[in-house]
Amino acid sequence: MSRRMFLKGAAVAGAATLAAPALGQTAQVRWRMATSWPKSLDTIYGSAAALGERVSQITEGRFQIQVFAGGEIVPPLAVFDAVSNGTVEMGHTLSSYFFGKNSAYAFDGGLPFGLNTRQQQAWMVDGGGAAMMRELFGKSNIVPFPVGNVGVQMGGWYRKEINTVEDLQGLKIRIGGLGGSIFRRLGAVPQQIPAGDIYPSLERGTIDAAEWIGPYDDEKLGFGRVARFYYTPGWFDGAAQITSYVNAAKWAELPKPFQAAFEAAANEQVMQMMATYDRRNPDALKRLVASGVQLRAFPRPVLEACYRATVAQCDELATQNPDFARIYTAWKTFHDDQNLWFRVAENTLDQFRYSTQGWGRS
Amino acid sequence: MSRRMFLKGAAVAGAATLAAPALGQTAQVRWRMATSWPKSLDTIYGSAAALGERVSQITEGRFQIQVFAGGEIVPPLAVFDAVSNGTVEMGHTLSSYFFGKNSAYAFDGGLPFGLNTRQQQAWMVDGGGAAMMRELFGKSNIVPFPVGNVGVQMGGWYRKEINTVEDLQGLKIRIGGLGGSIFRRLGAVPQQIPAGDIYPSLERGTIDAAEWIGPYDDEKLGFGRVARFYYTPGWFDGAAQITSYVNAAKWAELPKPFQAAFEAAANEQVMQMMATYDRRNPDALKRLVASGVQLRAFPRPVLEACYRATVAQCDELATQNPDFARIYTAWKTFHDDQNLWFRVAENTLDQFRYSTQGWGRS
Repeated sequence: MSRRMFLKGAAVAGAATLAAPALGQTAQVRWRMATSWPKSLDTIYGSAAALGERVSQITEGRFQIQVFAGGEIVPPLAVFDAVSNGTVEMGHTLSSYFFGKNSAYAFDGGLPFGLNTRQQQAWMVDGGGAAMMRELFGKSNIVPFPVGNVGVQMGGWYRKEINTVEDLQGLKIRIGGLGGSIFRRLGAVPQQIPAGDIYPSLERGTIDAAEWIGPYDDEKLGFGRVARFYYTPGWFDGAAQITSYVNAAKWAELPKPFQAAFEAAANEQVMQMMATYDRRNPDALKRLVASGVQLRAFPRPVLEACYRATVAQCDELATQNPDFARIYTAWKTFHDDQNLWFRVAENTLDQFRYSTQGWGRS
Repeated sequence: MSRRMFLKGAAVAGAATLAAPALGQTAQVRWRMATSWPKSLDTIYGSAAALGERVSQITEGRFQIQVFAGGEIVPPLAVFDAVSNGTVEMGHTLSSYFFGKNSAYAFDGGLPFGLNTRQQQAWMVDGGGAAMMRELFGKSNIVPFPVGNVGVQMGGWYRKEINTVEDLQGLKIRIGGLGGSIFRRLGAVPQQIPAGDIYPSLERGTIDAAEWIGPYDDEKLGFGRVARFYYTPGWFDGAAQITSYVNAAKWAELPKPFQAAFEAAANEQVMQMMATYDRRNPDALKRLVASGVQLRAFPRPVLEACYRATVAQCDELATQNPDFARIYTAWKTFHDDQNLWFRVAENTLDQFRYSTQGWGRS
């Protein structure tokens, strides 16, 4: 647009506009977002891309975020360090990956048997969670923003059935973080294996089981051909919150309107990523079952043992890590209040609805 | 800012910026948002205000939305017409209120025993719901945007217990829309009464029962003092979606970056309104019960009768209204697929979690 056209446009909009232009209107910001995801995970990577596009749309391209798949500029699990030290302005990852740095990051990614997706959102928006996470990650020069959730996912792929707690003894299962440490308490042997190696490891029998995400994502990797028992629920990832890390100095430099645009776009994705998974998982599950995958639910005694081990593990972490202990205390109260309310209304209606066989077929 | 300062600012930001200024940077837009809410409903009215504030933050005040309580410039139930005819640029309401204009609007507000909050979001974001609602409301010059949800609410306040379906016979209950028509099928006498008249009507016994919203909002009106049985679940409002209506001509005039800012801010509130209700309802429910309110669950035979009446009512509406019929067909398939998936993972884990007595007390 020429200067003459610009001034003409301004004149149309009135004199007040001419007096108004501030930092956000003249700034030009370009950020790089290092994600932990391959592009093939189009729902989760797609959500990262949508976040960048939305910020660009709102700011007419004056704030641009270039999105990179895991490994393109930073290895998938190096996202935390890259944002912390300013190698990239921001990342898009799962805080559970960095459980080894500080076990309290588990509250950001979500605890096994913990808050469900809506409860986690309530904790972050209005329950004190966001402030605690900002303080925690702030120690590493990171400002964290929730940007999505994958909901309750599946409990993984198994070469043999899990009928009793004893069946977990010696089970070589691909799972990391806090979930892995709980499997270990129950006698299993958790393994960290990159996504690309899971299929051959299951095929050769190097491992007996593997958790990945849920039907829509899992289908792409074809695990059902080499481990046909697909278990539910994914108790270790009951509401895996996806988080964007922003370098604290870069955040502080960002003009206020760009900060507001980023926050709105991030919160939009919190809703949209979950909605997209919810939309896509049913069809994928139907296709998997049609292809011969055997759907199984963990028997209640197995879930009870996993739950007791989870609580024991968290209680132990609280004795070892003051960050974990402080957040755990507040989180437990919030958690129990949420379950109280969800049992009264939300779950009562859901249970009734699920007891029908489909709309109109009670 | 003077022209010289403007050019200086542009120079700092680089030549690309000088070429870039477009409509959004020079436009000044002021809209009026007519809501259907009193300011006392601070969660839902507060969400409308937050939407306006966010848009202003992002655009540095160049796009301002002034928010009005119900009745301030437009009566609460005249929001539809006011947006449709351009009296105001936009509204913030519940589409179920306008069920009398077109029964298919029920799909926007949510059907009794219908999609839960997350399923409704999935339907709107990626399941075809948004396109169907845009087409439907487009006939009245309205572009609809989901801007929140109140989740499963309570089943209302009753002066006597509901133990059997027969107890609904002759029950004078304050409830409108589709929910009211279902109560009527079961022999009850639904009444339309403004919020301010509910308490005296219950106190005098002019009505036997009233539904409002949920614990946090209901507590303010003190219904527990005159109708002590508080029933769950609110099957007639299983996921009441709140919607912003935008006048179609005003939307078309809006600069693209302002449209993007509005969409992001609207989607942000879809998540945040629900999170805020989820955060606030548990404490309110505890206070209500402590004050002597008697919590009751509708017996299963009552829920079954209500469900059958709901399906019968919807089947009948489909024979009367081609809009309803067309959307109903697509909606039923989506609904059943969603329930299939939610039963497999989400509900299996929730049920286990709710069966524990609180974190660590299995």
